[in-house]
Amino acid sequence: MGQADQAAAAAQERGRQQLSPIPPTVNAERLHGRLAALSHCGRTAAGGVTRLAYSDADREARALVMDWMREAGLAPSVDFAGNIIGRRAGADASRGPLLFGSHVDSVPDGGNYDGPLGTLAAIETAAVIAEQGRALRHPIEVVVWSNEEGGLFGSRAVSGQLPVRELQNVSRSGKTVADGIASIGGDPARLDEIRRDTGAIAGYLELHIEQGAILEQSHTDIGVVEGIVGLREWNVTITGAANHGGTTPMDERRDALLSAARFIEMVNRVVRSVPGHQVGTVGRIEATPGAVNAIAGLVVCSLELRDLDTAKIDSLFARIRGEARRIGESDGTTFAFADLMTGAPAPSDPRMREAIAQSADALGLSWRAMPSGAGHDAQAMATLGPMGMIFVPSVGGISHSPREYSTPEAVVNGANVLLGALLAADRELP
Amino acid sequence: MGQADQAAAAAQERGRQQLSPIPPTVNAERLHGRLAALSHCGRTAAGGVTRLAYSDADREARALVMDWMREAGLAPSVDFAGNIIGRRAGADASRGPLLFGSHVDSVPDGGNYDGPLGTLAAIETAAVIAEQGRALRHPIEVVVWSNEEGGLFGSRAVSGQLPVRELQNVSRSGKTVADGIASIGGDPARLDEIRRDTGAIAGYLELHIEQGAILEQSHTDIGVVEGIVGLREWNVTITGAANHGGTTPMDERRDALLSAARFIEMVNRVVRSVPGHQVGTVGRIEATPGAVNAIAGLVVCSLELRDLDTAKIDSLFARIRGEARRIGESDGTTFAFADLMTGAPAPSDPRMREAIAQSADALGLSWRAMPSGAGHDAQAMATLGPMGMIFVPSVGGISHSPREYSTPEAVVNGANVLLGALLAADRELP
Repeated sequence: MGQADQAAAAAQERGRQQLSPIPPTVNAERLHGRLAALSHCGRTAAGGVTRLAYSDADREARALVMDWMREAGLAPSVDFAGNIIGRRAGADASRGPLLFGSHVDSVPDGGNYDGPLGTLAAIETAAVIAEQGRALRHPIEVVVWSNEEGGLFGSRAVSGQLPVRELQNVSRSGKTVADGIASIGGDPARLDEIRRDTGAIAGYLELHIEQGAILEQSHTDIGVVEGIVGLREWNVTITGAANHGGTTPMDERRDALLSAARFIEMVNRVVRSVPGHQVGTVGRIEATPGAVNAIAGLVVCSLELRDLDTAKIDSLFARIRGEARRIGESDGTTFAFADLMTGAPAPSDPRMREAIAQSADALGLSWRAMPSGAGHDAQAMATLGPMGMIFVPSVGGISHSPREYSTPEAVVNGANVLLGALLAADRELP
Repeated sequence: MGQADQAAAAAQERGRQQLSPIPPTVNAERLHGRLAALSHCGRTAAGGVTRLAYSDADREARALVMDWMREAGLAPSVDFAGNIIGRRAGADASRGPLLFGSHVDSVPDGGNYDGPLGTLAAIETAAVIAEQGRALRHPIEVVVWSNEEGGLFGSRAVSGQLPVRELQNVSRSGKTVADGIASIGGDPARLDEIRRDTGAIAGYLELHIEQGAILEQSHTDIGVVEGIVGLREWNVTITGAANHGGTTPMDERRDALLSAARFIEMVNRVVRSVPGHQVGTVGRIEATPGAVNAIAGLVVCSLELRDLDTAKIDSLFARIRGEARRIGESDGTTFAFADLMTGAPAPSDPRMREAIAQSADALGLSWRAMPSGAGHDAQAMATLGPMGMIFVPSVGGISHSPREYSTPEAVVNGANVLLGALLAADRELP
């Protein structure tokens, strides 16, 4: 029996022992119907979607989800960053709101679950709460963040992490972010007005597909996200000497691509040499001159390291840089590292993890704690208040692809856990 | 004392013992002047040349060398492939001609020696023979081959190795080869008429810069080329599984770029594991999707192997393919090899090697036998008759660069060895 199986058995046992009442559940048929309906906005021949932020398909999807928010008794409005917010008052107007939601924009040639699942489950949760006439202590806000795939633009605007210069970035739609925000009803000049302070929200919950295969391979229903990993990215420039591949003897080469090969193998070895969930990736590479008969004089590649613990990222990088120097010394090449990006880890809140785990337990679902290796709007929200994230299995671990798929059971399980966790958070959080 | 030094000392000793008369030499001043003059055709700001075949700069250079041929008493004509041929009758009209020459076209941003040295030394050799009133047994033909850098087009037309379909290739000048040939006075429809049969030439000699650093590093004046290496080139396709670099654990990756790295390191190791001059190069690589945060699902890279012995190339490739299969099995990836190009080795003729070595000996120059790792028009001529090639040192081994340089002494040494070798070949060859 694996760890996850043990966890599942223990959870089910706990569920039985507690003899809790049957937990509330969402309307599965409505949720599946809306997932299918949303998949027509920007549908591709391969059966996925291209629903780039600020595109016609994005606007079409946003109009649909606003309709569904209204059906759920929420009054949706669009903030200055183009985020859609459907608010419902709580019993105590002095409390900060509980936010929950996700996004509807996609990568080019993406799938039907990354974003839509969390968005529609959030609307479904609000609908069930309204239909059951449940009075909550906190105001609730269902949020559809704008331009998640381009780099969490909507959520970073709200958390005050969006530098003004990024408004001039050209998004995949072809529009600048500023023009894009205006095109969906926002006002890029007034982003300061929607910024919220730390402590201004009671909490944030997001359901998302895992986009990896840990849950599937461990036969686990639900991932309780421990946090969103931090990352550091570098441009690695390896300089050797370009030369003729026919006339330069093997022992007189300073082959930048050979050094790059040794670097890539070494990164893999170093990252795997210590226990834990850290990952390291070299995904981009360019060799110059890049001809069949030419020794590469220059290689530029990327390096990305991710972990929940920044200190671990830094210590792995120190080892990698040291080993790269030795490769260069031995090959007659040089390595230079330029910082590309740094993202701080965003741990989830223990109370949110507990609320999610309890919700899964009550539904008889197995769960395991795990990091999120991908970035999410939840990481921006984690700077404002207690954050929790729920994962459901991605079949084959596939995401950002038309083949992205989660089973109907996983979809409903995730929505039900979100509903239960939200109710628990409403009870437990100040 | 190194091997080359021993060879040099032995050669000098032989030169003294033979007590031969002072060998004829070229007019060094005229040769240097013409090299400098030619370097103005297509000169770049960096001091090199961009003299692409069929370009204005190429036509300008061709007009110059035809003038110099006429000054040397040759009557230059342009054949249907655009080759310039300056012929002078021999004593015996029944003999096939002795050909010698090189090319004047360059790569983009190339240097001043690759091609011009052999071309101008050949004209200089013919001039000295004319000036000294030397009667040769064979007709001589100084040849300036068209479009060498694009792929030996002129010499392959003459040796019957130019498939008609390649006439539609677009050359670096922007013209198709057919249009380019027409633009320099050839006729692409009549290439069959200039094709020569095996045995139709008495021999072929070409002086060229080494384009490597073997002569420089061994302090040797002259390279006696053993042959032009054969080569095989492959497109190597490595297929793994593209996935998210954040969400995919290290032990669940099928990383095509990691397999490519292991492949590149292995190729280097296998090629160096046996004695000899063989070389192996991976110079081109492309990773897909090629993003910082994505595990590469597909890598396409090149593999090139060169050696004088085809059997050695084949046996190295068999080992490489076997080891690649094992890398794929261990990494969950697959390797596929597609033939890109095969070039047969072109051994030089022992009588030509002897003529060159004797010529160097007589001049008191050190020499060593060595392969040519680069391709040359001489390899096409080797299919028609006895071929010989003479190398002089390239400073720093640099070629195809504005920094390509051979010393004035090396230039004159090479031309003098060519003159002596031609006279010897005229005496020795049928």
